[in-house]
Amino acid sequence: MMSGGQFELFQKLLSNVNQNSLFYKEKFEKNGIKVEDIKAPEDIKNIPFTTKEELRDAYPLGLQAVSDEKVVRIHSSSGTTGKPIIIPYTAQDVEDWAVMMARSFEIAGVTPLDRVQITPGYGLWTAGIGFQAGVEKLGAMAVPMGPGNTDKQLQMMMDLKSTVIIGTSSYALVLAEEVERRGIRSEIKLRKGVIGSERWGEKMRQRIKNELSIEIYDIYGLTEIYGPGIGIDCDCHEGMHYYDDYLYFEIIDSETGEVLPEGETGELVITTLRKEGAPLVRYRTRDLTRIISGKCRCGRTYPRIDRIIGRTDDMVKVKGVNIYPGQIDEVLKEVEGASSEYQILIDHINGKDVMTLKVEYNSDGDTDRSDIEDNIVDIFKKRIGIQIIAEVSGIGSLPRSEKKSRRIIDYRHC
Amino acid sequence: MMSGGQFELFQKLLSNVNQNSLFYKEKFEKNGIKVEDIKAPEDIKNIPFTTKEELRDAYPLGLQAVSDEKVVRIHSSSGTTGKPIIIPYTAQDVEDWAVMMARSFEIAGVTPLDRVQITPGYGLWTAGIGFQAGVEKLGAMAVPMGPGNTDKQLQMMMDLKSTVIIGTSSYALVLAEEVERRGIRSEIKLRKGVIGSERWGEKMRQRIKNELSIEIYDIYGLTEIYGPGIGIDCDCHEGMHYYDDYLYFEIIDSETGEVLPEGETGELVITTLRKEGAPLVRYRTRDLTRIISGKCRCGRTYPRIDRIIGRTDDMVKVKGVNIYPGQIDEVLKEVEGASSEYQILIDHINGKDVMTLKVEYNSDGDTDRSDIEDNIVDIFKKRIGIQIIAEVSGIGSLPRSEKKSRRIIDYRHC
Repeated sequence: MMSGGQFELFQKLLSNVNQNSLFYKEKFEKNGIKVEDIKAPEDIKNIPFTTKEELRDAYPLGLQAVSDEKVVRIHSSSGTTGKPIIIPYTAQDVEDWAVMMARSFEIAGVTPLDRVQITPGYGLWTAGIGFQAGVEKLGAMAVPMGPGNTDKQLQMMMDLKSTVIIGTSSYALVLAEEVERRGIRSEIKLRKGVIGSERWGEKMRQRIKNELSIEIYDIYGLTEIYGPGIGIDCDCHEGMHYYDDYLYFEIIDSETGEVLPEGETGELVITTLRKEGAPLVRYRTRDLTRIISGKCRCGRTYPRIDRIIGRTDDMVKVKGVNIYPGQIDEVLKEVEGASSEYQILIDHINGKDVMTLKVEYNSDGDTDRSDIEDNIVDIFKKRIGIQIIAEVSGIGSLPRSEKKSRRIIDYRHC
Repeated sequence: MMSGGQFELFQKLLSNVNQNSLFYKEKFEKNGIKVEDIKAPEDIKNIPFTTKEELRDAYPLGLQAVSDEKVVRIHSSSGTTGKPIIIPYTAQDVEDWAVMMARSFEIAGVTPLDRVQITPGYGLWTAGIGFQAGVEKLGAMAVPMGPGNTDKQLQMMMDLKSTVIIGTSSYALVLAEEVERRGIRSEIKLRKGVIGSERWGEKMRQRIKNELSIEIYDIYGLTEIYGPGIGIDCDCHEGMHYYDDYLYFEIIDSETGEVLPEGETGELVITTLRKEGAPLVRYRTRDLTRIISGKCRCGRTYPRIDRIIGRTDDMVKVKGVNIYPGQIDEVLKEVEGASSEYQILIDHINGKDVMTLKVEYNSDGDTDRSDIEDNIVDIFKKRIGIQIIAEVSGIGSLPRSEKKSRRIIDYRHC
């Protein structure tokens, strides 16, 4: 439920977008929303959600809610599927984002003495420059590498004695494996990793953590809402703190749209309480998580969400059962000898769904390959309720990528 | 000659680096320099130059002149030849650079209503983020594209109605030619181009200017001294204004090291008057230019340097004569029908230097190919004093690059 302070910001937001955002003016009119009818926090449920499709349809600058002079920057989603979403930022938005990012680094224990190697991309994407602004606001040293060029990354990591690495989990794994392969672990001075932008499991986390000898923090964010840095793990690693002075989070049932009680898992919906360039009201993120009740052991009062367990788009129905990548991780965590790298193949053969789970395993271990396969099948059946085929193969046999790994391949609609 | 205000900053700089920069402390000691002996502006000539090689030898962080907590960022030269040069920046350095860049945009007539498409790279390179910081400080809209992906560049240019393009001259030419080829000129709303980072000639300037219908401003800078944005053309286009409140410029004879009188062409030497992270004293830029006397017609009091006519490294001696790329441009400007794209091949055959100048020509024009070739040979002989071979070929036949074009190929030492 919204606090009084949040509701005040929320009412300001509504009257602002109703006046200055053509996008929301039309949307509210179409849906018969009168902002003066929103009198109490519980009235928020009457306001329709904003969807990714609507943001795409607003291309190029339909979301802009300030005059042109006030916009200092745009960012954009990749637009790999359909039109990209373009988000205009004011100077205040850029500043607010940097404040949140710096706060995130602080929560992760990064200090002005750290040297932070930034491996995500710059340009239209929000990642690189967003991380850099936060590092600089905190007063640490940004080592702005951008993506790829693993040789140079490792060289700089050694020569500059980088202490913090920022990247996707896939790329962190690439680096970890390369450090191992080259036998240069003793020359790597990393102490922390800030990892974001894709779902990843416990096993992968353990591998990166062990091979690089770092403590890992999940950072959350999305282009539509500033970018990365709107939430992060603390040292307790019991969910990600997010900033309720800038953002209002709700969890909804992604099929019915109903707001779920605290603690239940569903789709995260975000309202920006202070954004100027492109404010969003009840934006459906498609990310699946839950709000964690109670105060964190770290003592911080910022509320928390759990790790993202998947996206509504990643959710696949196999034999009538909803499966999220997050559940696969839960299964693999229980299987002795199985690695965190997996791929799911779904087929429809003789009128029945067939799901194959490909997993990497450590062939140096004690556990036999076929035992691991049997184990996966058993635990999957027990935990998720369906019969699958398990195929394990050696470390490095599944595809790695410097961007997000494609984990689910559904052949049923090909 | 230094002004009183500059000299005050200069003395502060000397005592600062003498205390806080191990690099300069050792250099001054080795050269018997006592900073207290520098009592008047003319004493600056007693201080030894700083060279690119010394900066390379200081890899990785030997130039740093502040404590680690104060450094918020590094940038680096590309390091294609030998070790890269790494420059640490404090928050104040980042701010000062943004102030100079915003000033540069203002001088070029960019306003808060402009939409500025940034095509140089981000990351370790100083270009992308430097331009972006200036655009944002000015309050214009940054469209942060980064390099390459010409399809997407043109799409965004049309969809976002970009009014200013920033890039290298080579890439601006790629874009201009592509706009022409696709017949989309009427959909391009560009009005200005801010072009930097490589030498380029009048003909190329005219082609980009005409094909994109823009006014073009040369911007100057180098990684070692902040990055781009330390000087720029105004509407008078009679040299680039530079910022004598941040930087002190001298022109020297690159062979003798003697300071040249105002107006004479030589190597530009820069002293940073306010830089904290990596201050530089009498840094030899290797860029060839001259200081332009008198006040600019625009009324601005910032002093001016002429366009960079080449680099001391680009200077080639052919048949005993020094040739700079800038002189080639001067020749080509006079040749009817010749384009601005050229390449120089130098060989040593039968004990003699042979120089071939390859030039593109517009085959739609009235001038005959062999006439153009004869003309080039004649004017070259008259202007520069040596006999060359000229070879003209159609537009597009010489290599284009999205980075800096390689114009001089010297086979004599292969």
